[in-house]
Amino acid sequence: TLAAPAIAQSAPEIKWRLTSSFPKSLDTIYGGAEFFAKRVSDLTDGKFQIQVFAANEIVPGLQALDAVSNDTVEMCHTVSYYYVGKDPTFAIGASIPFGLNTRQQNAWLYMGGGNQLMDEFYAGYNVQGFPCGNTGAQMGGWFRKEIKTVADLKGLKMRIGGFAGTVMTKLGVVPQQIAGGDIYPALEKGTIDAAEWVGPYDDEKLGFVKVAPYYYYPGFWEGGPTVHAFVNIDKFNALPPAYKAAIESAAAYANTWMLAKYDIENPKALIRLHAQGAKVLPFSVEILTASFNAAEEVYKETSAKNPKFKKVYDSLVAYRGEADLWQQYADGTFDRFMSYLQQQKKV
Amino acid sequence: TLAAPAIAQSAPEIKWRLTSSFPKSLDTIYGGAEFFAKRVSDLTDGKFQIQVFAANEIVPGLQALDAVSNDTVEMCHTVSYYYVGKDPTFAIGASIPFGLNTRQQNAWLYMGGGNQLMDEFYAGYNVQGFPCGNTGAQMGGWFRKEIKTVADLKGLKMRIGGFAGTVMTKLGVVPQQIAGGDIYPALEKGTIDAAEWVGPYDDEKLGFVKVAPYYYYPGFWEGGPTVHAFVNIDKFNALPPAYKAAIESAAAYANTWMLAKYDIENPKALIRLHAQGAKVLPFSVEILTASFNAAEEVYKETSAKNPKFKKVYDSLVAYRGEADLWQQYADGTFDRFMSYLQQQKKV
Repeated sequence: TLAAPAIAQSAPEIKWRLTSSFPKSLDTIYGGAEFFAKRVSDLTDGKFQIQVFAANEIVPGLQALDAVSNDTVEMCHTVSYYYVGKDPTFAIGASIPFGLNTRQQNAWLYMGGGNQLMDEFYAGYNVQGFPCGNTGAQMGGWFRKEIKTVADLKGLKMRIGGFAGTVMTKLGVVPQQIAGGDIYPALEKGTIDAAEWVGPYDDEKLGFVKVAPYYYYPGFWEGGPTVHAFVNIDKFNALPPAYKAAIESAAAYANTWMLAKYDIENPKALIRLHAQGAKVLPFSVEILTASFNAAEEVYKETSAKNPKFKKVYDSLVAYRGEADLWQQYADGTFDRFMSYLQQQKKV
Repeated sequence: TLAAPAIAQSAPEIKWRLTSSFPKSLDTIYGGAEFFAKRVSDLTDGKFQIQVFAANEIVPGLQALDAVSNDTVEMCHTVSYYYVGKDPTFAIGASIPFGLNTRQQNAWLYMGGGNQLMDEFYAGYNVQGFPCGNTGAQMGGWFRKEIKTVADLKGLKMRIGGFAGTVMTKLGVVPQQIAGGDIYPALEKGTIDAAEWVGPYDDEKLGFVKVAPYYYYPGFWEGGPTVHAFVNIDKFNALPPAYKAAIESAAAYANTWMLAKYDIENPKALIRLHAQGAKVLPFSVEILTASFNAAEEVYKETSAKNPKFKKVYDSLVAYRGEADLWQQYADGTFDRFMSYLQQQKKV
């Protein structure tokens, strides 16, 4: 069957630009945007082309959202929590300390009302969000010396951003904002004492093991952070329906792809880092508990003065209670038994 | 820009039929096929229509793959392990006892070579597979009496299928093949002693709690089972590239959607089942260990006589070792600390 003329009008040739918050060297998190753009092209017979630009090619990485808000570019690939300076509600779309793990985050966003609630909020910035990547739970970062107690955190200069930094401030940490490329020399000179980045695969590229070998886990401030594709709302609304569908489906596929790539690469990188001398250690329960209590204070204070934050936070927290109960049954015991077998070198 | 005439030819009107292995009442696992078909339609401006049929509308649920192999229908939505009677290799595409959890399964399929290896195998049945749903780790099923030791499994008549049944046979279980609708009366009469189905949300619908209240976890034979969309290879190869891309992306989105829906519904259903009198209990470490040893025997025997199985199994096992190591760090400790907070009713 040949298509009627109306069809041709529904498949216009469109070229967009996407600005990423990441450098090309981070092939998984930056690569997620390229995977996304390739799928959109494939889904539209090459008619809808989205060209991906690395951080600083058009705007600096942390201005990606602004560039979409003000229509400098049609879309970006970034992490919502980078923009907590505008409003802490941005954090919830990505990850908040002691929030959801990756599966729970996806469940809440796609089927628990999270995407709708965040889009109501994002609309105030002229953007619509699509989950478009996830790193899995991150590591807690690299420290120049051992951190055993909450007292060891006092005065610690740590490269840690946004909402997590606010929480850590309550424990005496002095948060530092430092771009990725400047972290290594700062750690080497001792200008800072610690730095969190992502996880084994990305962290290995920056060489931290040589200057700050204590590698703590988990990164309790991001148990399953979402990377978003943000689209300028007016530009999105002007698209033909099939192109809107292409953005939505390609973003969902990229969400799965990025996590899968991290889950393949991180185990190998962790093994290599261990061989290079990384001392891989868990945060103590004392530190985790104090951090949780500090986070609860921050949530209480923020909810009291910011109704937008409270609305989305309350939805996430209601789901978290149920999800953390269920997680202990089928999935949790399966994982724990497999860990037990792994420790016995049976798998 | 108006499209050139060539475009019209690349967007033909196509109508396909998809046969599901599931009844409409299972709105999540059956619903995954409807979610998929809707996205394919949206992505192609309504030109590529896939009509979804429930089990038994065209062919019985367990003949879905055959109907695609022999081109009765263009595609199906089913679980690969239903077809282990043809070849045990089918099991690996979905889930094998003590195999991968959901995240690991996706990582291995999409980025660890799993999809390619399985497609080489599926090609022998004239089909190509696309991951198109996941239930998360399943529950271990409903038992009429408590099962504390391996001795309690001896002679137990249990509704459990395929490869898992083969493994359980080594522990003295007598596997029974019973269709979903016939399980309840068999449990009620005592014709069988136990039955595994899916998880809280689906299990609740069949009312098992009234006749077999001991609800064990985890379903160690499916830590993260994939539901597949299978497409007849000749039919797939004849599609325009954008329609192939639509199938691939829509399936990946449905994979995420189904898990998200289960992750929203299962916690609520577990709480309701508990209120209805379900005695929710973990399998003992003795039972899990004996089952693991039995599974290892089956894998050894199967690998020795089936090179197709061995090739795919070896790939999965190589990844499992690394993944189960990494899983214990960032994600595992994050989840365990959240469980600890949940047990203290702090989240």
